[in-house]
Amino acid sequence: MTATTQDQDDQAHDDLAYNVFAKSCPSRGTLEHVTGRWGGLTLGALYEGSLRFNELRRRVDGVSEKMLSQTLHALERDGLVHREAQPTNPPRVDYELTPLGRQVTERLLALIHCVEGAMDDVLAARARYDETRGAL
Amino acid sequence: MTATTQDQDDQAHDDLAYNVFAKSCPSRGTLEHVTGRWGGLTLGALYEGSLRFNELRRRVDGVSEKMLSQTLHALERDGLVHREAQPTNPPRVDYELTPLGRQVTERLLALIHCVEGAMDDVLAARARYDETRGAL
Repeated sequence: MTATTQDQDDQAHDDLAYNVFAKSCPSRGTLEHVTGRWGGLTLGALYEGSLRFNELRRRVDGVSEKMLSQTLHALERDGLVHREAQPTNPPRVDYELTPLGRQVTERLLALIHCVEGAMDDVLAARARYDETRGAL
Repeated sequence: MTATTQDQDDQAHDDLAYNVFAKSCPSRGTLEHVTGRWGGLTLGALYEGSLRFNELRRRVDGVSEKMLSQTLHALERDGLVHREAQPTNPPRVDYELTPLGRQVTERLLALIHCVEGAMDDVLAARARYDETRGAL
């Protein structure tokens, strides 16, 4: 990191009214909704377009119906996901990202793809660590 | 999102050997180390430079000694954080990001700053949601 990057980062941070490093800042809760296991995968799945509940559940491999429902409620309450009940018979409910949810999800996907791309190095580092320090 | 962005996103994703959407992919565990409450804040704090354990603990407001220790072990094992024991008396241990940890943390900080910058809208959305739907 260059000094310039550091200065820009500090500047960007100082300009914000909210700070996740502060225990009581509400941005911590929202960051957890976005980066929690199911929240992050739900946002990532919806980035590809609006989905119905069961489509989402298939896409987010391993999530339970209850957890997906709770996750969607939290993301809807934060204004990141929009729930649209279609006036059809039988009734149909679609979930989609709001513009705010899309902004956040673009950053989240950049992080997810970075982590996925780093996994060869991560697994090699784990093997070295476990050899020298013993598995956790 | 334009079709082009979608295509690029799909392409970027298809090119990866790892996929966090798959339940058994090891990238899920690393993503959780990076985005877990304490993991994310620890990486963010170390982005500003190397820190000693107690400096880190003060910076990551609210973390317990035990949780910070567990968090640092997991990040060190994944090759994202380097632990350097200085040959001083008394011994001194510094923690710093590895080049891989810096790559991941840059994406994480972009997400964190995006969430912090969105909080006015998030809190307004929560107020609207609680008015119309009742608090969760």
